[in-house]
This record gives sequence, C-alpha cells and structure tokens, in this order.
Amino acid sequence: MQRILLASRPEGEPTAANFRLDSATTPVAHAGEVLCEVIWLSLDPYMRGRMDAAASYADPVPIGGVMEGGTVCRVIASQAPGFDPGDIVESRLGWQTHGLATADQLRKLDPTIAPVQTALGILGMPGFTAWIGLTEHAQPKAGECLVVSAATGAVGSVVGQLAKKLGMRVVGVAGGTEKCQYAVDVLGFDACVDHRAHNDARALGEAIAEACPNGVDIYFENVGGKTLQAVVPKMNVGGRIPVCGMISWYNGQAQSDISMSLDTATALPRIWRNILVKRLSVRGYIITDHYARFGEFLREVAPLVKNGELHYRESITEGLEAAPAAFLGLLRGENFGKQLVRVAN
Amino acid sequence: MQRILLASRPEGEPTAANFRLDSATTPVAHAGEVLCEVIWLSLDPYMRGRMDAAASYADPVPIGGVMEGGTVCRVIASQAPGFDPGDIVESRLGWQTHGLATADQLRKLDPTIAPVQTALGILGMPGFTAWIGLTEHAQPKAGECLVVSAATGAVGSVVGQLAKKLGMRVVGVAGGTEKCQYAVDVLGFDACVDHRAHNDARALGEAIAEACPNGVDIYFENVGGKTLQAVVPKMNVGGRIPVCGMISWYNGQAQSDISMSLDTATALPRIWRNILVKRLSVRGYIITDHYARFGEFLREVAPLVKNGELHYRESITEGLEAAPAAFLGLLRGENFGKQLVRVAN
Repeated sequence: MQRILLASRPEGEPTAANFRLDSATTPVAHAGEVLCEVIWLSLDPYMRGRMDAAASYADPVPIGGVMEGGTVCRVIASQAPGFDPGDIVESRLGWQTHGLATADQLRKLDPTIAPVQTALGILGMPGFTAWIGLTEHAQPKAGECLVVSAATGAVGSVVGQLAKKLGMRVVGVAGGTEKCQYAVDVLGFDACVDHRAHNDARALGEAIAEACPNGVDIYFENVGGKTLQAVVPKMNVGGRIPVCGMISWYNGQAQSDISMSLDTATALPRIWRNILVKRLSVRGYIITDHYARFGEFLREVAPLVKNGELHYRESITEGLEAAPAAFLGLLRGENFGKQLVRVAN
Repeated sequence: MQRILLASRPEGEPTAANFRLDSATTPVAHAGEVLCEVIWLSLDPYMRGRMDAAASYADPVPIGGVMEGGTVCRVIASQAPGFDPGDIVESRLGWQTHGLATADQLRKLDPTIAPVQTALGILGMPGFTAWIGLTEHAQPKAGECLVVSAATGAVGSVVGQLAKKLGMRVVGVAGGTEKCQYAVDVLGFDACVDHRAHNDARALGEAIAEACPNGVDIYFENVGGKTLQAVVPKMNVGGRIPVCGMISWYNGQAQSDISMSLDTATALPRIWRNILVKRLSVRGYIITDHYARFGEFLREVAPLVKNGELHYRESITEGLEAAPAAFLGLLRGENFGKQLVRVAN
C-alpha cells in the first residue's frame, strides 16, 4: 500500500516538499476491524490548518503522520458484523490506498442515490457544512439577498442553490469568468462577480453593490481577505455572516491583505464599525460540532441530488501520488468544483 | 435661554471650536406642548457619531443645530394633560437650558426611587444598554467569565454588576489604577486590568489571561482598539461578543491601531480566525431598537438601585457652557462614572 505523509510544516504557502510518498505493508483486519481500499480521497481547505503546529479546533497532523482526509472506500476484508467485502463505505482513512476502520468509523453508502463520491461532496461534509451554515446561523428569508464567496466550490455551490430554493436572491463571488458563468448558467445564481476582475476591496464592493441593488442580508463567508472587506460595507441592518472558512488567509494571514490596496491598518475598525452600526450577527462554526443533524440533512438534500434539482461539479485528479499537487492547486483556487482524488477504480 | 450648537464637523478628535454657545428666546408652550427647564444633561460617547456627516444608524446633527442629548427636566408650563409645573421628566431636549416637548416625548420620573439624574445613567439609556446587551446577546451563565471594557463607565459598570448577580466571574478593563480599584472594591468585580499599564495588545492580553484563568466566555465590547485585540484571542469556544460601542475608534479609525505595537495588517485576519476556530458569536446592537423592553428593565433594575444592591458613580460638570469640555474629556476617558452636566439646580 501507499500513503502520503506530512514531511515538514509549511511556512506560508505549502509546497510539494512538505509531503512524502511512502510505501507500507497493507494491514490485516483483526476482530472488529474492516480492511478498506480507498477509491476516492477528498481534498478540502481545512487540511491546510492540520499542517500547522498551532493549536486549532482539531489536533495537527504530526510530522511523519499520514495526512488526514475523508475517503470513500471498498471493503476488502471484514471482521466486523454488518460489513462485507464489496460494500462501499465512507470513512476518514486519509491520504492512503488502504486502511483499517472499526464499524463506528464507517458509513455504508447507497450507490443508487448518486455516485458514491458525492459522499465526500454535496452529500458529505461540504454539503452538510453548507446546509448547517444556512439552517443554524444564516436565517435565510425569501426575497432577501445572499452573497456567497468561493461560489462554485464544494460548499459555496450548495449554499447558493439551497438559498435559491428558499426564494432568495443569490450572488456568488468566484475567481474567473468560467466559474462565474457556471454559477449563473448551471447553478442558477442571479449573478456572480469575478473577484479577479477587481483589484481591490473597493472596486469589488462596487461590483457587489451593483449585483445586490437592495443590499446584502447574508454574507456566507468562505474566504476572508478582499472579498470580506468588499461585502461587509454593503450589508443591510440586521445582516448575518456565518463564518465557515477563510481560505485566502490560510497560508499566512497578512499576505492577501498586503496585496490589496485598501488601507490595511483600518480594516478591522471598518468591519467592526459595520457590525455595530448595522447590528450584524457574525458567527463562526465548525462542522464537527453538528453531526447530530447529519441524518436530517441527508433526508432533505439527498432526494434533491437524486432527482437532479441540485447540481454539483467535480475536479478529479488521478492517483494518490498526485494528491499534493491537487491540494496546492485547491489552495490557489485552481480547482473548479469539489476536488477529489481517484485513488483506485 | 442658552444652547450649544454644532459649529463645524470635527476632523478626527473634536475640539472646543466645533461647538458654539448661543442665546435664544425661551419658547412658549402651545396646545399639546410642555415647556421644560433642563436640570441635567447626559453626555454619552454616541454623540461623537452625530457630529460626523457620515451616514450611521441615526441622522447627523446639522451644522448650526443644537447638539442632541438626553435630559432630565422640570416642567415650567404645560399645555398637555398629565403634566404640571414642577413635574420632573426625562426627555431628549439636547444641549440647552430650555425646550419644548409633547407628551409622547416625556417620561415622568419618580424621585423616590433614586436621584432623578439616574434616569440618564443606571436607570436610563446606559443602564438599559447594559441590560439589553446581557439579556439579548450575551447568554450569561453562572461560573463563566465575562470581560467588560470601559468597566467603570455608565454601561460597563452595570454590565459587570448584573453579571456578578448572575454568578459570573467578572473582569473589568479600565484606564488607571483608581478606576480599577473602584471596579473591584465598590462594584465587586473579581479583577480589573489597567489598560494604561500595558503598552500593546499582547501585554494586555497576558494580563487578561491571568485574570481569567479559565478563559473568557463573554467579551462585552465598548471600546475596540487594543482591548478588543487583547481579549479575543483569550476567548473560549462558544464565546459571545455583544458589540455595544468602540470609543477608541470614534475619532478616526486608524489612530489607536497605529499607536499600538501589534502588526496592524494582521489585526482583521487574527480576529476573524478566532471567530471561526472558536465558533464565536459577535453581534452589534443599537439600543434604540429595543425600547419595547424598557419597562421590563426598569421593573427589574430599579429595585436593585433603590435598595443599594447596584452601585453607580457620577462625574458632574457644572453649567451648560462647560458641556463641550466635559464631552471632549469623556472621549479621552477622563470621566470616572456617568458623565453629567448640571444645567440648573
């Protein structure tokens, strides 16, 4: 079997040298264990945080440890009741070709609902993250306007589509004309603003204001940086900001700020003043706190995926050894849709 | 009669030249009106915002207009049923010695509960602001730790005392040893940190962490600036931040940031990362949205003031003409307790 280890901790933007491809003996399932072959590996922005030694909401990956990650797998051998060879399961085996899990670490998938890799995307953690952010924090109301950043990503695309179904005006922010076109044409957003076409937060803010003539009621935050500073001044009284991620700041917090032309020294006071004057509600959340509601999410969203009402798009990289490069691309926004690695067929 | 007009709009910190003392003819009460003599004028940080032309949650005072403000008055003449000469009332007549009001703009005070000027402090807008912030946004829980900035001010002193009654650990942040001593000895806080004794947000944060050995669950935000950046990194998962004010940023947002030694370019990303990782809930509010609950507040808090369970302190300036200087001092934190102007006896 093969696996990818964290070779060293990155300083700022990670490089291929932070990862190491390693071979190991395929383990054997003992009593209570299931041996799985990884078919799909999910790549997600949160993994950047696990590469740092700094305390966060989850423990870091140790140096020399297997990189963490969600996987869809095929059962090869089972010493646990309820699992048989050939079963397709979701688990968190990480960046490797094979792994062991106990029954409580596995979720059997029904391949008739949708392709099984959706358990890592629209019907898995990212889709659930979108649904929880809307359901628990955003208070979506028909007729109001929602702006979502990283709009064609695994989370943002679901946020926007669910908000459309609730009767909201939905405006995406994405990088590049192709992604923006997709957000409008396929995902059904009302508009999508290309942040690459606007050099600074002020210009981006004007474009957002144009797309949201009645102001912004919900800003679904995935990115931080320039987009955050563009959207917040356009928010209405009583606006809500679920803070789900801040990918533009994951590689060292100052970089993207310094590169934008707004005066960085006033960035915090400006946001803070908007929070006060507009009575905004800003709330961070981490999806692992919310899994008690995963069943409810699946019951609501799986039928919409099965009948084609919700769209999703995948960015597929072939082979475990290509995972580091794909992950580095994800951090730069080079993926288009849910980033997956096909580890086996 | 005399009044104080807004002579010009300040650039940054206001000066005496932004105000003008003016004489006028005392008006006459017509049908439905009450003529009042102002006894007490309240000075509050929000008035700084009214001096700017910028759109905010309330209209600016026009150039040449009377400065706005809450007042406690004596009725001189009444053409409105229910009000008689000699009645003591609360109204918003602004920075002047006399004014007219209609019945719906007046609230009759009961001088047996507490000195009537408390209607501008602990039993008025500032006390109500403290109570609403705790009641609606902070979710106080016994055993948790609350930090309140501007701790001996009209709002902060009530926040901390109410939180103590709810069984919380309460730590104030105030400017100077005298205020800190008062917070502990008279208000009953568990500790109070002198922000003047700590040059930057990092040092202040260490002092706060020492005073809050189990972390901070609620940060009641009155000041912004260095204190905000000191407290937020010390917050616990699930922490709440009611944003009530940000006095350190009222005179131009960059000043206090530039004067502190933390890297200002990373201030926003650092706060934002804490919001995400610690699942913080940050909520701005403006007290004028909440007056439907004022009666409930009075029923709960007035008895505590009357029986001496809640303490308050006043900083009294004599004479309307001294109001501008007192207001400038308030913005610099020179007041100690609720800032009042005794306009008449």
